[in-house]
Amino acid sequence: MALRVVGVDPGLTRCGLAVVDVEPNRRATLVDVTVVGTTPDRPLDERLLAIAEAIDAWLDRFTPDVMAVERVFSQLNVSTVMGTAQASGIVIVSAARRGIPVALHTPTEVKAAVTGSGQADKAAVGKMVAKILRLDEPPRPADAADAAALAIAHGWRGAAPGSQASGTVSAGSSGLTPAQRAWAAAEAAARRPTAPRR
Amino acid sequence: MALRVVGVDPGLTRCGLAVVDVEPNRRATLVDVTVVGTTPDRPLDERLLAIAEAIDAWLDRFTPDVMAVERVFSQLNVSTVMGTAQASGIVIVSAARRGIPVALHTPTEVKAAVTGSGQADKAAVGKMVAKILRLDEPPRPADAADAAALAIAHGWRGAAPGSQASGTVSAGSSGLTPAQRAWAAAEAAARRPTAPRR
Repeated sequence: MALRVVGVDPGLTRCGLAVVDVEPNRRATLVDVTVVGTTPDRPLDERLLAIAEAIDAWLDRFTPDVMAVERVFSQLNVSTVMGTAQASGIVIVSAARRGIPVALHTPTEVKAAVTGSGQADKAAVGKMVAKILRLDEPPRPADAADAAALAIAHGWRGAAPGSQASGTVSAGSSGLTPAQRAWAAAEAAARRPTAPRR
Repeated sequence: MALRVVGVDPGLTRCGLAVVDVEPNRRATLVDVTVVGTTPDRPLDERLLAIAEAIDAWLDRFTPDVMAVERVFSQLNVSTVMGTAQASGIVIVSAARRGIPVALHTPTEVKAAVTGSGQADKAAVGKMVAKILRLDEPPRPADAADAAALAIAHGWRGAAPGSQASGTVSAGSSGLTPAQRAWAAAEAAARRPTAPRR
């Protein structure tokens, strides 16, 4: 029985959405992927409503088992981070209203899970997403590929040997693939108290 | 005909909500005020849903003409600003779904409008809010008073002689009260391109 994961890369201009079915043997299949959003010249309330209506429609249509959202850090570009945070709050509430559990993952965790390196660039992430999902080319734009990567990373988390939903994987666990070890290290780094979590 | 304004001081632990009726002669009457939110030990999705359900219920109950929300700046405390931004996105969408226009005001603008000084402390704001609304004492906690101050400031904006909704009040306009001049100056400062707006 596959786990249906909706991945969300939040944003006001380009909010990436991807639905991926992940089987216990880690085989992942893309169900749908898109990018929604509005141009920055629109009023903020209209922009946020567009995100809300898009995610509501997606959750009703695809009824995912879980939502994986990129964790927003306040150290990012100050001109866009507030809108990104507002969009993330909206998509999380949309899931919560439907009883869909929400998991937050850092970009580093996701890159590590998908490529084996937490420092992978966008091209490398897109290439691996295409390979994993058996696509001819990466979903475009990058926000769509990032949403798919989030969904894959979360779906694999439960399937990874030795991993636990509570995030207690130790970096030295035996039986982990290089990607799993890289992800565990990234998770451990994200747990350090110096890194703001929300 | 009074303008019914709902003021929102967004936050996850304490989200201030106030409904104020403002008459054309600037007389302002408190309809209701409260603080909603959850403790930081609760899961983020549960916390955001609590804010969403509270604001939905308030907007359905009080049917305000307009929502005034505190503009969130990313320079604030990084440990709380992301949650504050997420909460603000949720309340703005709740208004947008109902066709209620949303106005954003900076804390400096609100302090200036209510007290005559953009640098007023919380005690001064609370004291003036109580005086304006003819209350025996300020709404508590401070988040409740701040929400009421937002509603008053927005309601007065339309009523202020020489002011325009587009924010084109010049700091030197004649016929303005000291509070109106202070607000105009605060607005002008907020329009400077070096200040991130969202």
